[in-house]
Amino acid sequence: MMDLRTPRGVKDFLPSDAKWKLELEQKIRDVFTSWGYQEVISPTFEFYDVLAQGGAVNQQTYRFFDHNGKLLVLRPDLTTPIARMVATRLKDEPKPLRLSYLANVFRYDDVQVGFQREFYQAGVELIGSSAAAADAEAAALAVTVFNELGVKDFHLDLGHTGYIHGILEECESETQKRQFWQLLLTKDLVGLKALVAESDLSEQAKQLLLKLPHFRGRESLLDQAYHSTENPRARSAVANLKQIYSYLKAYGLEDQVYIDLSIVKSLGYYTGMVVEGYVPNLGFTICSGGRYDHLSERFGTDLPAVGFAFGLERLMLVLENQGQRPPEQNNGIFVLPLSWRHAVNYAAAERKKGTRVEVDIQGFSESEAVNYARQKGFSRVVIVGADGVRSIPMSTNEGAV
Amino acid sequence: MMDLRTPRGVKDFLPSDAKWKLELEQKIRDVFTSWGYQEVISPTFEFYDVLAQGGAVNQQTYRFFDHNGKLLVLRPDLTTPIARMVATRLKDEPKPLRLSYLANVFRYDDVQVGFQREFYQAGVELIGSSAAAADAEAAALAVTVFNELGVKDFHLDLGHTGYIHGILEECESETQKRQFWQLLLTKDLVGLKALVAESDLSEQAKQLLLKLPHFRGRESLLDQAYHSTENPRARSAVANLKQIYSYLKAYGLEDQVYIDLSIVKSLGYYTGMVVEGYVPNLGFTICSGGRYDHLSERFGTDLPAVGFAFGLERLMLVLENQGQRPPEQNNGIFVLPLSWRHAVNYAAAERKKGTRVEVDIQGFSESEAVNYARQKGFSRVVIVGADGVRSIPMSTNEGAV
Repeated sequence: MMDLRTPRGVKDFLPSDAKWKLELEQKIRDVFTSWGYQEVISPTFEFYDVLAQGGAVNQQTYRFFDHNGKLLVLRPDLTTPIARMVATRLKDEPKPLRLSYLANVFRYDDVQVGFQREFYQAGVELIGSSAAAADAEAAALAVTVFNELGVKDFHLDLGHTGYIHGILEECESETQKRQFWQLLLTKDLVGLKALVAESDLSEQAKQLLLKLPHFRGRESLLDQAYHSTENPRARSAVANLKQIYSYLKAYGLEDQVYIDLSIVKSLGYYTGMVVEGYVPNLGFTICSGGRYDHLSERFGTDLPAVGFAFGLERLMLVLENQGQRPPEQNNGIFVLPLSWRHAVNYAAAERKKGTRVEVDIQGFSESEAVNYARQKGFSRVVIVGADGVRSIPMSTNEGAV
Repeated sequence: MMDLRTPRGVKDFLPSDAKWKLELEQKIRDVFTSWGYQEVISPTFEFYDVLAQGGAVNQQTYRFFDHNGKLLVLRPDLTTPIARMVATRLKDEPKPLRLSYLANVFRYDDVQVGFQREFYQAGVELIGSSAAAADAEAAALAVTVFNELGVKDFHLDLGHTGYIHGILEECESETQKRQFWQLLLTKDLVGLKALVAESDLSEQAKQLLLKLPHFRGRESLLDQAYHSTENPRARSAVANLKQIYSYLKAYGLEDQVYIDLSIVKSLGYYTGMVVEGYVPNLGFTICSGGRYDHLSERFGTDLPAVGFAFGLERLMLVLENQGQRPPEQNNGIFVLPLSWRHAVNYAAAERKKGTRVEVDIQGFSESEAVNYARQKGFSRVVIVGADGVRSIPMSTNEGAV
């Protein structure tokens, strides 16, 4: 037996999965489009040096050399290539720009449940606005997509990097700040407690840092968070979140949006609101994003931006777990030709109506045709001769395997 | 200025191009589906050793090592990954199998006009049938796709590898056979004449080889080709083509199908009918395919197969040259919110109808809104307040840039 395996972390989508994936993608695309987002497509690989300027390729990536010795990289995200496009070929377009993508990305991460090394992302970037209404639009769009797809119990957590940055302004050194950030990122409460104890922070800051991992709740949390600190940056972050939240109430989405000031993302990328999407009893986020105002500077422009992305495979996993995968339905016609000319004319007319039609090429007998049509999920066999057609319906209890 | 170039031979699809590409892909997908073809998706990269077994990676490919030192390759086609899928996870499915794909492939070829190193292909594989009706279906489907897409003057040339193989059976050595094949492949008529002259072939074979590059025409060519040789393999190839052609007449496609026995493809891959699709005054084929009965053997199964593929970028180029690219039309609504709650409700209702709606997040004045909406191709600005809406239509002569 030959070894015909595929590498770990990549996969085939066989017909049934591919069909469902394409249907989901089309639904997502329709929502993005209806909100004014225009899809773009970037190259699968680019020069490593170009994407690295954006700072997003510090994660594990697939790299290789072209014949001229230049290092290429399979894109690990779409945010950076889109920032590059905006800085070059879209720089004269009126702002804000609303761009979207449905594309595969590549990361050489450890393969775990729900993790792939090649995986598909759907996402948007709203570029050229620093308004709270822009953050709110991104958050509202994320919730709307999941609602439109029929995901049950989806909710979005809203946090803000400015709050933690503000609290940590008291730190005696950048090193200590990074240590706190890392402990909060990994939710290492024991380590956090130890570092708080040995630090020179004010009592208020110490209390707040210990409370922070539990700072998750409804709107009232914002007032609590505001009054827990006097740091201007932290307070301005809360004010910003309050404004965003008020827009989200106008969207009527307050039931699906929580405030979570414990959200910590890798340092340096996000600059304002951050979001994470969840469903209960799932070990990972299914949507992630936020405001990143400094990416475009690295490409020579200066455009604030906010966006989010989610993984298609994770979405499919969630829908499957929730029993939301649509059942396969018998449909279409298997044509058994007695007269070839009449059969292909009949098939062409049915196909024009959008019907799936296969014409037998094997010279099947009637019983072979019925058997094949049943296994392939057709709803009927139609025998087409020069003198007319005869239709054999498949019983509805049998059918697609 | 930073260097933000992308590698040669890959490209960005900006919104307008991406939109058109996606529309074309959906039309192609609809045709494939209506003929019973089921889409599959393969990984972007696979183990080099696995794809190399299929023999299709002898062309220039992008290769790189994973962290375990195994060689990976960006897929140079979909035919081989699909043969792998069929030999493994689809081997117990009832045959014939009709599979299709719309995917990007990667070849490190010299970049010329219309050639890309990353490019998109649409294609089908009809697997598990050696019937002439299967060849005819593949050919008819190819013509139908181009007709449905509105390509003008598309025609398909039908050839057969068996004809040339038959004639060359007289060759004194495999080396000589390969030499003839190469000269026919490159259409080197001077070299062909010289090799014919110095060969020991029969007078009939010599005459035929010199005529071969001009063996292109209508159905009557088949009789001429049949009587030009007594070689059984060549004659059986003509008989097979005749049968395929008779099916294509039943499809009513004879006006768009030529016989071209001069079609020569790289040795060893195709085993029967070969097809090439053309439009006038274009320097390259826009569709290519044929029967390849021995690929699956290399993966341990034994399934005859026929298929074709065409390049999306080339198709777009042809449609653009033919003035068939649809004009961009103004559509959608730009909402200027006086009351946020009313504005987002209005937007949600319009989006439900499928309308593209952007809600202003910048606090535009009315004139700024009109200006933005014009540049972005909206058909109207709607000002939404608590007490009602006011609509400002964009004049139809202005609009999308």
